[in-house]
Amino acid sequence: MFSVDLNCDMGESFGAWRMGSDAALMDYVSSINVACGFHAGDASVIRRTIEAAVEKKVAVGAHPSFPDLQGFGRREMKLSATEIFDIVLYQVAALKGMCAALGGKLHHVKPHGALYNQAAKDRDLAGAIAAAVKVIDGNLILYGLSNSLLISESERIGLQTASEVFADRTYQADGTLTARTQPNALIKNVEQSCSQVLEMIAAQTVMTTGGEKISIKAETVCIHGDSAHALEFAREINRRLKETGVLIQAVEK
Amino acid sequence: MFSVDLNCDMGESFGAWRMGSDAALMDYVSSINVACGFHAGDASVIRRTIEAAVEKKVAVGAHPSFPDLQGFGRREMKLSATEIFDIVLYQVAALKGMCAALGGKLHHVKPHGALYNQAAKDRDLAGAIAAAVKVIDGNLILYGLSNSLLISESERIGLQTASEVFADRTYQADGTLTARTQPNALIKNVEQSCSQVLEMIAAQTVMTTGGEKISIKAETVCIHGDSAHALEFAREINRRLKETGVLIQAVEK
Amino acid sequence: MFSVDLNCDMGESFGAWRMGSDAALMDYVSSINVACGFHAGDASVIRRTIEAAVEKKVAVGAHPSFPDLQGFGRREMKLSATEIFDIVLYQVAALKGMCAALGGKLHHVKPHGALYNQAAKDRDLAGAIAAAVKVIDGNLILYGLSNSLLISESERIGLQTASEVFADRTYQADGTLTARTQPNALIKNVEQSCSQVLEMIAAQTVMTTGGEKISIKAETVCIHGDSAHALEFAREINRRLKETGVLIQAVEK
Amino acid sequence: MFSVDLNCDMGESFGAWRMGSDAALMDYVSSINVACGFHAGDASVIRRTIEAAVEKKVAVGAHPSFPDLQGFGRREMKLSATEIFDIVLYQVAALKGMCAALGGKLHHVKPHGALYNQAAKDRDLAGAIAAAVKVIDGNLILYGLSNSLLISESERIGLQTASEVFADRTYQADGTLTARTQPNALIKNVEQSCSQVLEMIAAQTVMTTGGEKISIKAETVCIHGDSAHALEFAREINRRLKETGVLIQAVEK
Repeated sequence: MFSVDLNCDMGESFGAWRMGSDAALMDYVSSINVACGFHAGDASVIRRTIEAAVEKKVAVGAHPSFPDLQGFGRREMKLSATEIFDIVLYQVAALKGMCAALGGKLHHVKPHGALYNQAAKDRDLAGAIAAAVKVIDGNLILYGLSNSLLISESERIGLQTASEVFADRTYQADGTLTARTQPNALIKNVEQSCSQVLEMIAAQTVMTTGGEKISIKAETVCIHGDSAHALEFAREINRRLKETGVLIQAVEK
Repeated sequence: MFSVDLNCDMGESFGAWRMGSDAALMDYVSSINVACGFHAGDASVIRRTIEAAVEKKVAVGAHPSFPDLQGFGRREMKLSATEIFDIVLYQVAALKGMCAALGGKLHHVKPHGALYNQAAKDRDLAGAIAAAVKVIDGNLILYGLSNSLLISESERIGLQTASEVFADRTYQADGTLTARTQPNALIKNVEQSCSQVLEMIAAQTVMTTGGEKISIKAETVCIHGDSAHALEFAREINRRLKETGVLIQAVEK
Repeated sequence: MFSVDLNCDMGESFGAWRMGSDAALMDYVSSINVACGFHAGDASVIRRTIEAAVEKKVAVGAHPSFPDLQGFGRREMKLSATEIFDIVLYQVAALKGMCAALGGKLHHVKPHGALYNQAAKDRDLAGAIAAAVKVIDGNLILYGLSNSLLISESERIGLQTASEVFADRTYQADGTLTARTQPNALIKNVEQSCSQVLEMIAAQTVMTTGGEKISIKAETVCIHGDSAHALEFAREINRRLKETGVLIQAVEK
Repeated sequence: MFSVDLNCDMGESFGAWRMGSDAALMDYVSSINVACGFHAGDASVIRRTIEAAVEKKVAVGAHPSFPDLQGFGRREMKLSATEIFDIVLYQVAALKGMCAALGGKLHHVKPHGALYNQAAKDRDLAGAIAAAVKVIDGNLILYGLSNSLLISESERIGLQTASEVFADRTYQADGTLTARTQPNALIKNVEQSCSQVLEMIAAQTVMTTGGEKISIKAETVCIHGDSAHALEFAREINRRLKETGVLIQAVEK
């Protein structure tokens, strides 16, 4: 029997601004990545998100980002490895302490947006993130793009990792995601999305846009929470995976 | 033999801007209050400040503030008790986790600026701060103005507190500090400052600007680190207290 | 024939976060108040909002605020009169310049949230706002709460003002709005709301919650844009006022 | 007789943090670049800086930046051309309006830090900055690195430009500045610095670190204001240029 983790970014409201349907989505995922205040998520949003996750027994991860509220952490920034280490240290420490205070326990760390993408292919950046996570808590699991430098650098220093794949994105021959600027970047059909996920977890392969089968490791599947149909999509992915006999649960330590 | 804690606000640089002579001042105090990023102190400044304190074996406290970088946390703000609880939770969690990651252990919490002053006389605000500190770590010591509501509310829920007095400020008959707008608010003479401190820790009294003796509890003495003569002042206070046989050490749990 | 201005707060999105239905609402109001970046409204949001208003020939005002993104400018802050002058100067200058660059012309200034409320009853604060507006452009109209100190202080230094009333709020005997914490603070019925507006502009009176008639000056009526039924409400107010023969147009200089 | 503009970055304090010796430095330069709040310079700092410049009859420019307070605008960021246009529009509008309100007139625009460096070699970025400046005021002069794309793109759309050179930096064969990571990047000797400036304005050439003479256009010379010896350096450069018969004055329109 196969098992997989379904994760979703949450806690991305800020002050008077709402984003996502966090409470409803929590019923269909096994782990969540909580914004830490740098790209979204003020202290009150973070506290409420953790409280809800603790109540629903969903695994809580920190979702640290570049300091860029206006750009939602999606704009590339060039920080030194030391600056990266420091901002990850701060954000993960805040989330770990808040989880513990609210009756939970921080389970993993997944870098957000541009930080996630840059860490996939920049060894120094990946190393700085991994080092910060390890020094906060060596038992935290680091979620990173499957086949990325973030995964290999984290494993090199002894961290447990979870290779992440995307239910609603297509892949290129080199294992990277098709850029959002391309017409076929997104999978909008739930059926097709479930097939891709099932192939990734069962056969450990994925069909690229070029028609090739490439190998991929799928330990956690990202469900986007901020699109218009996010809730429906999550419910369907969850239902079909279960129907097929896949166990949906957070990555185990 | 008398003992007292000398504390100083530190980590108040931000990005390219420097403030204070943290490294030098650490030789003369027994505990420091580290800015948490809301009024000062970015992640790199915080990390460096904690590292220096761990090396010098100075007790580290969190110094949470209202979110007001431009006003340096000195401007009154009206937040709900829930918002106060949340921002203190976030800031203290960040500092506690960073201390642990860097080989130290968070020792206390001292609210900063306007948050400190408002918490001295607003019961709800004081209660929200105390509740947040307790839920993060019930062993943390809460530093508050001697005789204030922050002290009494913290003790009411079982937190250990440290009553704070000021070496360089004069007092009014009701136990409050003389407002900075008054001509005689500041004590600029080190000799006079030491005498006041000694009287406060030995006799548990202080002479007000009106010439009355009032009772005061002095468990920790604040040394300001951002004035022109801060370093010289700290060195002299430290030297003279030691000469008089006062033991300078962090508040014990 | 009576005429009145209908105004609405706009440009309150920020980065990835959307707020309000600005484009649709512009069809039903004669002037808008554009967030200036301190409580909402990044540079791109401001630019797009002004472009839309210029196209739809709606009068554009600046909507300056305390610097409090997380609190959406709704939390009281205590700034010096000089600080108030400076932040209003900066925000109004930015909006005036952007309007001119985009083919429009800044028409008025309406302080936002806590700044608006505090300026209604604090003479120094009101004076600082008025002075900043005047030095930027003495032809700008200052929108303030009817009967407030902001109106009187602005007129004292020669600024044109527009006394503002609220379509969806009830009034107290002293002319202030019923606090939102009271059960009868809001008027949710469009019919009742239109009656109140008509009475205010035709008879220059309003019925208080206590059943008294008090005098009130209504030169501009605020339509809230961020509630669930904002769009429907604005359309109805607009339609019924027109049916009754009221001319809806921006305050004339 | 030769003439040249000496410019200096100013208004880079923020809240409680001081930077630079603005008041003293203004005696030795003919134009200043005022931070606009995105990398430094809150509204009060900007207002005071403009007031001082108006009094001392120094030409005032806007110094817009990426939104990065913690990184002081020195960290590369990847924004879209539209985002660049919008943030420059906002910042320059604010400065232009404040200058006019305070009895001055905005004279030029010089992008700051990473924005300046990226605009030197990225055509889209350079074009977005130039377009924003032009739409605010087509009479503004754009200061850019001599021989850069920022200069050529600005001239292409009809803006007047000022080619900037550096008194305290060495040059490479391709006309770029020697990277700060190189040992010989900085000129610390005032004599040598003055010789370089004189050669650049008189012969329109500069000796590279490799010993070659290359051609360079020097209409404005940047004096750094934030180093330890900035004041002394500015005074000496000013004195020696005058002695040699060079007229120090802002770029004329």
